[in-house]
Amino acid sequence: MINIKPEDIEKRSFEIISEELKEKGIILDPINELVIKRVIHTSADFDYATNLVFSNKATLIGIEALKKGCDIVTDTKMAQAGINKRVLASLGGEVHCFMSDEDVAVEAKKRGVTRATISIEKAAKLNKPFILAIGNAPTALIELKKLIDEKKINPILIIGVPVGFVNVVEAKELIMETDVPYIVARGRKGGSNVAAAIVNAMLYQITR
Amino acid sequence: MINIKPEDIEKRSFEIISEELKEKGIILDPINELVIKRVIHTSADFDYATNLVFSNKATLIGIEALKKGCDIVTDTKMAQAGINKRVLASLGGEVHCFMSDEDVAVEAKKRGVTRATISIEKAAKLNKPFILAIGNAPTALIELKKLIDEKKINPILIIGVPVGFVNVVEAKELIMETDVPYIVARGRKGGSNVAAAIVNAMLYQITR
Repeated sequence: MINIKPEDIEKRSFEIISEELKEKGIILDPINELVIKRVIHTSADFDYATNLVFSNKATLIGIEALKKGCDIVTDTKMAQAGINKRVLASLGGEVHCFMSDEDVAVEAKKRGVTRATISIEKAAKLNKPFILAIGNAPTALIELKKLIDEKKINPILIIGVPVGFVNVVEAKELIMETDVPYIVARGRKGGSNVAAAIVNAMLYQITR
Repeated sequence: MINIKPEDIEKRSFEIISEELKEKGIILDPINELVIKRVIHTSADFDYATNLVFSNKATLIGIEALKKGCDIVTDTKMAQAGINKRVLASLGGEVHCFMSDEDVAVEAKKRGVTRATISIEKAAKLNKPFILAIGNAPTALIELKKLIDEKKINPILIIGVPVGFVNVVEAKELIMETDVPYIVARGRKGGSNVAAAIVNAMLYQITR
């Protein structure tokens, strides 16, 4: 056990991550480096060094939008809990999660689709710029692709990192076919913790 | 993309996990099987098939306590968000997270320790049986070991799954030296999502 002050633990963790990436011969794009390292920090999983895929300047686009006070829409209460809402609020943004809304539940049941699908429809009606951070539901990404094709939704950035075994891999590939800026965890891995870490990594590049 | 009803996605996911475990030649202890599979389900990471360590009958002890309405104390708002509180409440339990409490912050700052350390001290004063679910802070486990040795805290079960690079591996090994029942993710991996998945896996064995 090493003796370390609480405030130094994160710094030391990032140093270890940097050292081990170097040992593995992995060189990260400097633009995306802090996002990738924070995801590894939150998961202890170096797979994210290679499976995170960024569209051109996605991280910079996200940071610029957050600076201007954009909102975040996410598909889980866990991601909502994990995003640093104090920092986000200091920039003028807030986090929305529509998944537990009564109207969403009713509509989903009526149409036999997931609440995530209906949540994306609801996000499309927001009258403020927003980043989508999807950590759980591939159906959210499938609906999103449909609405993008129909020009009915216009997110600034899609953080597409659902985790799972059914339609998850394919749903993420769909998002990478769009013209909307994206950060996607290719393959099965991801999760609410990963979605929150990506948002926080962008926030901290503004405020730290 | 396969066409599947929302309510069948989880079932199909667990079937895929079972098939792939079989292909890998991994046979799970039936007592812990549903806990391990749910953690894989939440992370898409088969490492948990081998790194989750259970003390004797830990899962059964957790399930019995939850049946009797025990509470959960966790170290993150994310785990608190991820635990199925509706099901827990139906059994008479609730989730506590003391990390953002004003008194915890003040005391941690005063003593130069983490809020997680103080949160464990606060948990020790609960006058109701509880399970500890630690998904983030190794310092929580270190404090816990100390209080167990001093016979000042008596959790029914420790879910010790913090994630990280500094003192995390060692803190988890400490917990495995105690006589308290535990479920630990050996090594660096873990997280709030893993902690919540373990609790939910026990809850669902009671109510589904």
